[in-house]
Amino acid sequence: MERRVEIFDSTLRDGSQGEGLSFSVEDKLRIVDELDALGVAYIEAGNPGSNVKDLTFFQRLASRHLANARVVAFGSTRRHGVTCDEDANLASLIEAGVEHVAIFGKSWDFQVSRILRITLEENLELISSSVAWLKERGRKVFFDAEHFYDGWRENREYALACLKAAVDAGADTLVLCETRGGALPDEVYETTRQVVQLFPQVPVAVHAHNDSGCAVASSLMAVKAGAVQVQGTLLGIGERCGNADLSTIIANLELKMGIRCMTGRLDNLAQTCRTVAALCNINIASNTPYIGSSAFAHKGGMHIDGVLKDPMSFEHIRPEQVGSQRRLLMSEVSGRALLMKRIERIRSDLSKDSPQVRRLIEILKQKEVEGYQYEGAENSFDVIIYRELFQSEPFFTFVHYQTIGSLPYADPDSGTSHTALVKARVRGESAIAGAEGKGPVNALDIALRSVLEQFYPSLRSVHLTDYKVRVLEGSDATASRVRVLIDSTDGYDTWSTIGVSSDIIKASFLALSDSIEYKLFKDRNNNERR
Amino acid sequence: MERRVEIFDSTLRDGSQGEGLSFSVEDKLRIVDELDALGVAYIEAGNPGSNVKDLTFFQRLASRHLANARVVAFGSTRRHGVTCDEDANLASLIEAGVEHVAIFGKSWDFQVSRILRITLEENLELISSSVAWLKERGRKVFFDAEHFYDGWRENREYALACLKAAVDAGADTLVLCETRGGALPDEVYETTRQVVQLFPQVPVAVHAHNDSGCAVASSLMAVKAGAVQVQGTLLGIGERCGNADLSTIIANLELKMGIRCMTGRLDNLAQTCRTVAALCNINIASNTPYIGSSAFAHKGGMHIDGVLKDPMSFEHIRPEQVGSQRRLLMSEVSGRALLMKRIERIRSDLSKDSPQVRRLIEILKQKEVEGYQYEGAENSFDVIIYRELFQSEPFFTFVHYQTIGSLPYADPDSGTSHTALVKARVRGESAIAGAEGKGPVNALDIALRSVLEQFYPSLRSVHLTDYKVRVLEGSDATASRVRVLIDSTDGYDTWSTIGVSSDIIKASFLALSDSIEYKLFKDRNNNERR
Repeated sequence: MERRVEIFDSTLRDGSQGEGLSFSVEDKLRIVDELDALGVAYIEAGNPGSNVKDLTFFQRLASRHLANARVVAFGSTRRHGVTCDEDANLASLIEAGVEHVAIFGKSWDFQVSRILRITLEENLELISSSVAWLKERGRKVFFDAEHFYDGWRENREYALACLKAAVDAGADTLVLCETRGGALPDEVYETTRQVVQLFPQVPVAVHAHNDSGCAVASSLMAVKAGAVQVQGTLLGIGERCGNADLSTIIANLELKMGIRCMTGRLDNLAQTCRTVAALCNINIASNTPYIGSSAFAHKGGMHIDGVLKDPMSFEHIRPEQVGSQRRLLMSEVSGRALLMKRIERIRSDLSKDSPQVRRLIEILKQKEVEGYQYEGAENSFDVIIYRELFQSEPFFTFVHYQTIGSLPYADPDSGTSHTALVKARVRGESAIAGAEGKGPVNALDIALRSVLEQFYPSLRSVHLTDYKVRVLEGSDATASRVRVLIDSTDGYDTWSTIGVSSDIIKASFLALSDSIEYKLFKDRNNNERR
Repeated sequence: MERRVEIFDSTLRDGSQGEGLSFSVEDKLRIVDELDALGVAYIEAGNPGSNVKDLTFFQRLASRHLANARVVAFGSTRRHGVTCDEDANLASLIEAGVEHVAIFGKSWDFQVSRILRITLEENLELISSSVAWLKERGRKVFFDAEHFYDGWRENREYALACLKAAVDAGADTLVLCETRGGALPDEVYETTRQVVQLFPQVPVAVHAHNDSGCAVASSLMAVKAGAVQVQGTLLGIGERCGNADLSTIIANLELKMGIRCMTGRLDNLAQTCRTVAALCNINIASNTPYIGSSAFAHKGGMHIDGVLKDPMSFEHIRPEQVGSQRRLLMSEVSGRALLMKRIERIRSDLSKDSPQVRRLIEILKQKEVEGYQYEGAENSFDVIIYRELFQSEPFFTFVHYQTIGSLPYADPDSGTSHTALVKARVRGESAIAGAEGKGPVNALDIALRSVLEQFYPSLRSVHLTDYKVRVLEGSDATASRVRVLIDSTDGYDTWSTIGVSSDIIKASFLALSDSIEYKLFKDRNNNERR
């Protein structure tokens, strides 16, 4: 029989504890839709008792139709010193109006004595009374045994007593939490295996953190040990070193272990992660397994050669399986083969040894010394190829720009004013335009395009979709060199260009100018092909 | 007997294959010094046969005294069709002038037939002749069995024949490479265990990649299976998803598994990683286990409460053990306790319920809505506290700034000109200053300080040490809001401030202005205490 494992996503709850993260209600609703479409089984959506924003959110969720996922409200066992009926947190879990609730309780004696400062017996009673109270109200209850693996290591008998208290009170799932993230995968495997054997009638889940860099491996080992649910967050966001990264776990379960864990399409994984990252306002680390931009990027000459012969030689899966793409990177080490591929897309009659190709290699090397890296901004290199191979009259010659910015009068909260002036020569004519913008780069962008649109109306369809700034050397502070990357689109294609300078305005201008030149070359090429 | 494992660092060789990385000879020498001080056993320093830069580097290394580490030159088995004596790559390994050399050879039949396109027998002969040739020349030889785990899975007999060819020819260490990074830790464990049993007389090393997000776990499992050497890179840099991250592995081996693997001090780990990251020109991901800036950062109210009672409650090790620091983060969810701690450092007579504290909480919430996050820029929040609690006359009142930037005359390679004008009121007087800079922010920084230095000479000691820009929303491109973070120092203390605006210049100005105000408040406080 095909084995299945459930995915329990806690991006909106445990994930929101990550440094620098905070979600608006609207962000949360969009993330719920993304996770539902991906096909996870459960979405832990927040703690309705912690703030009003989360309660509002649950109320808005109630009217939303989800195709795959069930929403879970998170809270804790009741506070010591009040009854369940008096406990505001438990009440809010009912108010949230969802069938599934998760409550955490202590399962490590150290935490009970030292942090809660109550007796071990009292803690067992908190667990059993809280679970029972929720069960009486018709809820499905996940019991999160906080610090379970630490508890098992230091006082196994008590850790088990906590699980037993929850099970006896009717808990539907036991969640073994590796809260501090310090356990190694073999310990997680062995502990989970024994718990699964001791509670054969109750589903066991694993909830791991990444403080030892092993959260993914520990989660997989727990599945091998019999856990039927994996908890984590998309992209591994979360407090400290983050939670177990579900994007990696989902791909490993499906592609490596042959275990089905989603109802959606695996080849939506990368896109879902990119959307959620945008909503979280974080960048996906380029080396993230399966879905990072470098996950299937090849740079070494020998690796590129191997992948061109057979991708299996240096790829453990086909990138398309998770919605990612292969990339062959341009750099000194990758040699001429790749440069030739880039050139061939533009002109097919040149050999590796032609003088023009040699000159392009020299230019590439020189630009790298200046701090240019065309990885991720390949179209700026295309512009260089175009200029070198088609030494026709340039589309435009830049003459002069000036930006003026000012912040007036004793009130830093007032708006700033930014204007830019750009002068260029096009087909023998001089043209100048001025513009206002939200900042100097925005003003410059508008001014440059309004000069050139008079001559090239197709530029009206171009707009920027992303603008990234990277400071190259930290030591010089505001006088450091910066690398600006710009993504542009004309509605059909998207392209990426780069500029490098110690002046952020100039770096931006160079990237903007390349973007426009690329568009014009592209249009000319397409016209000639028609 | 205490168990020991050797660390083999490949940051300069396999790490340099990472996207966006390239090292100057000077960078490499500094990285070698850092790794040596950390106390790794081996430093794989590059491929002297691949380019002249690497050969120069080995020649410069020869005269360098290393206290702990031995340098290894990397190359491959000889090419098919030439003898060892004719092979330029093998010759360069000898030319490198180091005792230890590593050569990789194929150990997966698929790679031999499909990529090398020679017979399986011919490949065995490449391995044995190359190892023997190097041994005859007195070298210690690491044999890197490329794709070994894939080979073992698909043609175990042939994978073993490759190892045997190397051992019979005199290889000193067998390096089992998980080249594609796709194997899971239990498979790595089982395969390594069997190889260790089959070759009891030869040390076995593991070399893992992170394409399944399990490189750290797989390396540790290989050690449990009997491997006596772990290969990887600092910070896990390397092609695609990177190599096994040695910083995590070293901490896990030493602190979790009780295995000594370094001769240096473990509490230098974080600093070494930061230095190497700076030389690699990369940022350390904040959630990196053990050494990331968030690794011991606590945000949730309950977690902060726990850590204040006993750090063990939410920390798996003491951060000082690896040279890291605990951080308690300020945000909506962390509640008043932390805000109070911050306030208490400035004024100790206020309670949680005082009107001033309530007002500060309101300000904090309002600022967060605007995009401010004081995590990592806590001193801008200190400035707000100072202003609120000591409603004395301000140090200065900003009146006006203007920046003018221009890039002249048909030559984008020429220098730009940037000037700034800042006007402020100090102690009833108006003052104005102008300055030139490398960019608008640099000019503004200089102008602002030259206005204020006339009144506050202590500002002369202040300079910026880092300047970071983060675009808050990607969708609006050049009109997006940006968050600027600035680190400043006066030689004694360092502090971090923040500015947010849709205009990068204004955001920078706000952060600069906060930095100066913080310095002035700090000085006044210190003077009053004296």
